[in-house]
Amino acid sequence: MELTRRHALAGAAAIAVSPMLPAAPVRAGAPLADKQAPSYYRYRVGDAQVTAISDGVNTFALPETFVLNAKKDEVNAALEKAFLPKDKVSIHFAPLVINTGGKLVVVDTGNGPGAFASSKGNVGQFASNMAAAGIDPKAVDMVVISHFHGDHINGLLTADNVLAFPHAEVLVPAAEWKYFMDDGEMSRQATDRMKGVFANARRVFDAGLKKKVTPYEAGKDVAPGLQAVASLGHTPGHSSFILSSGSDKVFIQSDVTNHPAVFVANPGWHLMFDQDPAMAEATRRKVYDMLVADRMRVQGFHYPFPANGFVEKDGNGYRLVPAPWSPVI
Amino acid sequence: MELTRRHALAGAAAIAVSPMLPAAPVRAGAPLADKQAPSYYRYRVGDAQVTAISDGVNTFALPETFVLNAKKDEVNAALEKAFLPKDKVSIHFAPLVINTGGKLVVVDTGNGPGAFASSKGNVGQFASNMAAAGIDPKAVDMVVISHFHGDHINGLLTADNVLAFPHAEVLVPAAEWKYFMDDGEMSRQATDRMKGVFANARRVFDAGLKKKVTPYEAGKDVAPGLQAVASLGHTPGHSSFILSSGSDKVFIQSDVTNHPAVFVANPGWHLMFDQDPAMAEATRRKVYDMLVADRMRVQGFHYPFPANGFVEKDGNGYRLVPAPWSPVI
Repeated sequence: MELTRRHALAGAAAIAVSPMLPAAPVRAGAPLADKQAPSYYRYRVGDAQVTAISDGVNTFALPETFVLNAKKDEVNAALEKAFLPKDKVSIHFAPLVINTGGKLVVVDTGNGPGAFASSKGNVGQFASNMAAAGIDPKAVDMVVISHFHGDHINGLLTADNVLAFPHAEVLVPAAEWKYFMDDGEMSRQATDRMKGVFANARRVFDAGLKKKVTPYEAGKDVAPGLQAVASLGHTPGHSSFILSSGSDKVFIQSDVTNHPAVFVANPGWHLMFDQDPAMAEATRRKVYDMLVADRMRVQGFHYPFPANGFVEKDGNGYRLVPAPWSPVI
Repeated sequence: MELTRRHALAGAAAIAVSPMLPAAPVRAGAPLADKQAPSYYRYRVGDAQVTAISDGVNTFALPETFVLNAKKDEVNAALEKAFLPKDKVSIHFAPLVINTGGKLVVVDTGNGPGAFASSKGNVGQFASNMAAAGIDPKAVDMVVISHFHGDHINGLLTADNVLAFPHAEVLVPAAEWKYFMDDGEMSRQATDRMKGVFANARRVFDAGLKKKVTPYEAGKDVAPGLQAVASLGHTPGHSSFILSSGSDKVFIQSDVTNHPAVFVANPGWHLMFDQDPAMAEATRRKVYDMLVADRMRVQGFHYPFPANGFVEKDGNGYRLVPAPWSPVI
């Protein structure tokens, strides 16, 4: 028996095509969707709940010096090994909202409303994706900042330059605050990029927040169950976090690595945005050896959404094994 | 300088805490969310658009015979290597909606409304996640079925046992139709499981759809740009698909493997649901060698949502490298 659609439609062979089947109405082709799904994802850590919320993705031509100590060809090879297009790089951003059970805590805030406008929505999606997740910025109790780069702090302010989380205490690493608010440190910056980082930090924290911040020290809980961990090098006060509840925990690495296909695979490579590249590498190796030894879940600000998984050794580097998406909590 | 939160709150050191800061209203702790994000995800293949839509996840105690030719300890070791809990297995389901530009095509339909009710929403989510994606079942032009297992066909019917896609032509593999509608084949089944597969196929296609189906042959286009590819073994008429548009393509594998952590890593392992395990293994190796050689994107019905990525060789098996989620289309 060889059944073809032609046979079937003609009512041939064993297939009945009922003449009573109502005629489908004439329709134009369904339009292609123009928006991605709202990019938020929830998981539990003991009694706490983490919501990873994408701030979007920034795709740009691969800079010659994206990795300070590797050739562009080597970086392209790492991208191709990970089935990514070469000669460009896509940087992802994933702030968090943690519900500790008692407190609603934002960890880092994304590129902010200005970037949303200038990128035509490619980045600066934190606010809209948080709204899609049903989380009210007015209900946020605390905002914890890992470090003072713009993609982490610019979302602290609305387009009108007022606090995006109006009832939240804003917590910042003490060492980061000391460094970036120091006029002497600012005066010694030689590059336009670093001058810009200082200027932007002061725009947000001084002009915007009027210095109403609470510095925190590494080793202390900054919120219930959320411990700050010094992970210096990317910036002078860069902080990671361990969220613990019962026997469950996750390591929130912040920027210990940038894109995993490049820097988890090659921990010795130095990102152009690491302020002290050697210290950043030492931190990276220490953190990733710990993640491997403890088989601890890790959440990465620059991992592709939903930006969490586990780490295994792979040759001289490591491999991120993304955690499977669960369609139930 | 050593800044602590106590110092800052007391207005000590360089940190100003403005007395004008409005007092936060007394709030109860924000409630934990009880629902995951709607689990759908869109990507382009040339001019076509694929929406992967989760039907949910079914978690159950690991059967002794989940893999026919491996010990439970070996399966547990594969789960642990992938950072998954042992002694249980979570099976994911990801039907598709493909917009070819002219036609809206559903590929497989999930566990259906009965399973949604009995699982308390863990599976049978296809209809609700499709609604979240803004896709109207009445706008679907075609439903293409890969094979006749219940998790692929039960979503063809609503809870009232009428066609869930009322204007759609339903396309089924000719070999699958011939086999499962053959009374002689049915009479020769020895196991309760296989008797159940036959009974369910007839419930859906005979009692439900009144045999109003269009059989299709492998090697032919079943919809614009969507070619059926015979991938026999899991069932006698099991079909995969290649969606092509311009130079872009994706291999829609259906059930060439079940969970990638178990069967992509160990292609020689035989799933208890593979009807002809040796043929299924031969198909699996042929398909995965092709995916590796061509570096072709693959979409897998039982991969964790959004259920697509690329395949690389890993020792004697393969590794699925999930494609990074893009928060823009």
